[in-house]
Amino acid sequence: MIRTDLAMERREMHPQEIPGVRSHEITVGDARIIRIEIETEEGAQALQKPAGQYITIELPALNELGAFSEDVLVSIKNEISRLLPREGLILTCGLGNTQITPDALGPKTASYILATRHIAGDFAQTLGLSSLRPAAVIAPGVLGQTGIETGEILAGIVQKVGPAAVIVVDALASRRIERLGKTVQISNTGIVPGAGVGNHRQEISEAVLGVPVISIGVPTVVDAATLASDLAGRDIVSQGEPMMVTPRDIDTLIEHAARLISHSINCALHPDMPPEDLLTLAG
Amino acid sequence: MIRTDLAMERREMHPQEIPGVRSHEITVGDARIIRIEIETEEGAQALQKPAGQYITIELPALNELGAFSEDVLVSIKNEISRLLPREGLILTCGLGNTQITPDALGPKTASYILATRHIAGDFAQTLGLSSLRPAAVIAPGVLGQTGIETGEILAGIVQKVGPAAVIVVDALASRRIERLGKTVQISNTGIVPGAGVGNHRQEISEAVLGVPVISIGVPTVVDAATLASDLAGRDIVSQGEPMMVTPRDIDTLIEHAARLISHSINCALHPDMPPEDLLTLAG
Amino acid sequence: MIRTDLAMERREMHPQEIPGVRSHEITVGDARIIRIEIETEEGAQALQKPAGQYITIELPALNELGAFSEDVLVSIKNEISRLLPREGLILTCGLGNTQITPDALGPKTASYILATRHIAGDFAQTLGLSSLRPAAVIAPGVLGQTGIETGEILAGIVQKVGPAAVIVVDALASRRIERLGKTVQISNTGIVPGAGVGNHRQEISEAVLGVPVISIGVPTVVDAATLASDLAGRDIVSQGEPMMVTPRDIDTLIEHAARLISHSINCALHPDMPPEDLLTLAG
Amino acid sequence: MIRTDLAMERREMHPQEIPGVRSHEITVGDARIIRIEIETEEGAQALQKPAGQYITIELPALNELGAFSEDVLVSIKNEISRLLPREGLILTCGLGNTQITPDALGPKTASYILATRHIAGDFAQTLGLSSLRPAAVIAPGVLGQTGIETGEILAGIVQKVGPAAVIVVDALASRRIERLGKTVQISNTGIVPGAGVGNHRQEISEAVLGVPVISIGVPTVVDAATLASDLAGRDIVSQGEPMMVTPRDIDTLIEHAARLISHSINCALHPDMPPEDLLTLAG
Repeated sequence: MIRTDLAMERREMHPQEIPGVRSHEITVGDARIIRIEIETEEGAQALQKPAGQYITIELPALNELGAFSEDVLVSIKNEISRLLPREGLILTCGLGNTQITPDALGPKTASYILATRHIAGDFAQTLGLSSLRPAAVIAPGVLGQTGIETGEILAGIVQKVGPAAVIVVDALASRRIERLGKTVQISNTGIVPGAGVGNHRQEISEAVLGVPVISIGVPTVVDAATLASDLAGRDIVSQGEPMMVTPRDIDTLIEHAARLISHSINCALHPDMPPEDLLTLAG
Repeated sequence: MIRTDLAMERREMHPQEIPGVRSHEITVGDARIIRIEIETEEGAQALQKPAGQYITIELPALNELGAFSEDVLVSIKNEISRLLPREGLILTCGLGNTQITPDALGPKTASYILATRHIAGDFAQTLGLSSLRPAAVIAPGVLGQTGIETGEILAGIVQKVGPAAVIVVDALASRRIERLGKTVQISNTGIVPGAGVGNHRQEISEAVLGVPVISIGVPTVVDAATLASDLAGRDIVSQGEPMMVTPRDIDTLIEHAARLISHSINCALHPDMPPEDLLTLAG
Repeated sequence: MIRTDLAMERREMHPQEIPGVRSHEITVGDARIIRIEIETEEGAQALQKPAGQYITIELPALNELGAFSEDVLVSIKNEISRLLPREGLILTCGLGNTQITPDALGPKTASYILATRHIAGDFAQTLGLSSLRPAAVIAPGVLGQTGIETGEILAGIVQKVGPAAVIVVDALASRRIERLGKTVQISNTGIVPGAGVGNHRQEISEAVLGVPVISIGVPTVVDAATLASDLAGRDIVSQGEPMMVTPRDIDTLIEHAARLISHSINCALHPDMPPEDLLTLAG
Repeated sequence: MIRTDLAMERREMHPQEIPGVRSHEITVGDARIIRIEIETEEGAQALQKPAGQYITIELPALNELGAFSEDVLVSIKNEISRLLPREGLILTCGLGNTQITPDALGPKTASYILATRHIAGDFAQTLGLSSLRPAAVIAPGVLGQTGIETGEILAGIVQKVGPAAVIVVDALASRRIERLGKTVQISNTGIVPGAGVGNHRQEISEAVLGVPVISIGVPTVVDAATLASDLAGRDIVSQGEPMMVTPRDIDTLIEHAARLISHSINCALHPDMPPEDLLTLAG
């Protein structure tokens, strides 16, 4: 019983072809991009993921200055752009809990997204642009803090502001410890928060919200028993409650990933602005 | 032109009686409680505040251990209890920006409120109680971060979860520097976020949300020109933009106030639980 | 090759008696206390730890309010008191990096220690005591941040302030994931920072500083290969660099442990003050 | 009785020439630089500051992206370079308290300084440089936290590591609210921590440490009575304790100033490295 939120890790468990699942892989500079498309219910059952597109970008190691390469940024930005509608308000929602470091990817990413919905006209003028795409951002907290399912909060806000699409950002669980912080999964199938850590919450998807939902995630935790099974090469069953673990340098990992994802989203939303200016504005 | 969010400071500016405004004052231990009721539109115009009840609790100095007295806690709890409906879900909303220390009172208070809506039954049993009042909490951020008026976000959530009442917690502006962190204002008139700092946002009130709104605030900033006018004993007009200032020890002030307000709300919502247990659970 | 900083885990690896090593175990309420004394060089080699006393306190689970029991607090306080000199200045040093959550135990503990060296007389009077033991606190950061070995910084400060003893607090590595945050090791042998994570730094000990050094640690990380070996029941060799992992709820674990250790130290240093007052003063 | 740490504000109080004090002013792009040299004891008494050089750089407003101009950075870097010895270890010391936002300038600046003393050789090679100047960094906390005068801690460390010079970074008090966060003072006279807020601590200077001390400060607080006096145009005496105030946006002000000062120091220490690389490495 392997815990993972990554479609590519589910795909790897099947050495043979799977009916209803197509996948192919390309390399852009030092980034590796794996596209998996689940086309049928049969494929969905085989991979235990809803039908739709899953794009995984494997990041190379950070360079000697501790930064990601231009290739990585451009690849992620392009994948997001492909899934976004051309026009209209985009609402980004950072899922997770700021008080649990490995779960803080969503809120931290949200804190670096440029909100423009309330200033799109004026601010565009200040920057010398004819217009600026309206963007809104929310980090609603988690059920344990709020007493409310995140899906309910988000549905309430979507009804009020009517976005063209929603982007949800969340921390994921991976099967392999070496993928933590090194992999970005982008999908058009929505998300079930907490699924990877065995704490299933209300689904957040187009079916529920009524607008397209693009989910972006980075694995930040791995199940201790899954980790041991992989290192041992055979199934190890953990006694007692499952325990999710995370690397010792999780703070840096989260900061880097939040910077990378937020910058990619900002660039995808505002292709006319110089990326350096977006970086400066994001703080 | 005096900037203040406190009804009692507006009242103090009028030496004589004001038609449509009643006020009286009591002392409970070392806490001083001033009740002001604005009963008519005439009174509302005189005080430049909507009609309704305003209760101000003046806190004594912290004791030698740096803590508030029992009298203060009980007084605030009682005032909140009087305004709350007897039964049903209470949604607490922490207004403000976690990244601006003097504006972080709302979100910080929210982080110490016990959310029970999702666990009311089970958790009551664990604690040996027959039931636990459902409570939900939200800290939606501010317009500059989200691109969405806080009132819109809150209205969307209220529609989804249907609370019996909403408590909003916000940082206020005071006329006098010595009141910062030393005064609690509780009101049943709702709130206009940012009014005190000259940045009026959409009103949050029963008229807008359709359920009673109890607002709780503590002054954390003072307008520099207002401060100078008071110290000088005559009107001083500031050139350029108004500048709001805050004491050097604002971090401690916010932490103390957030602990005090959150504990008072938790005690008002769960009168059957020992206050020490509520303190421990709030973290 | 098992990574652990706990003497009791080294002891457990030897089913038989070890010459030069004595150990016995007692139970105080719900706390289990294991004392190991390494008396000879032979014993030191067998356990790969310097000769001296190692006291391990195994904590029971937190209670339903998320707090530690009185038994645990009293047990830790008593063990610290036994190792401390009766009089004179005590300098507490929080080792570790505030920016790496699992490494932040030392600095976080230090932030809750009451510094009294500069106010011992006045403050005692305010509190109605005849005197207050002088205490000083420092959190010097780590080599990667400062460019200076922590041992050098500490030696420089010890020369200036001349303490009767030094207490060092540090995060440790454990062999078993279930011990993380659940075990306190107290020792009179000093410490080699980073030893458990394979990053040996200059020793901090009586030999180096010239005054007794009491070290207090709580395991917060486990080596992924060690974890896998234990779960698998056989040796698993990790390829590439060793990776230290930590539980997903590491923030809570660190906060609880820092509160527990700091309160135990404060109580051991100021036995005449009511523990509740020490808690309030520590903020 | 005007509270200020800025030599230029003391100079401004004297309309006429002062014997033993020379000053002149230049403009570099959008930065204004005022140099004051106190040459005699008479001059020192007139300005209530020790004899030596005081360079004040007045910053223009941030640009529309919220960033400082290149002129500002280069001006500050050049002034620091002029005062530094050509070779040898530089120890930067961030004075102040991380838990009081307006006092956190020093520690926050320190957290962005690149420490190279322990890796100068290896790291230079990784970066393709023949050598890298050794730099060390410390943020020792304040007397209230540690129980030890910062000057004692620093003296102990200086004895151990033997720097060629020490840079101390501290938050200052200004007379005018509009200078907060907009002025940098660089001096070769050392510093008396807390002088501006009426809380004099042990001097940190070449006389005490035995090596040159360059102090860099930015005003972050203003005395409420001084502020009122200036706005009123006549002396206002505050009753009770003096109260230092700070702008509402103090968090942003501190973050910007810490980035500016740390980057200027990093550039002054490592003139052969591209400034963009230093920015990336500083995190």
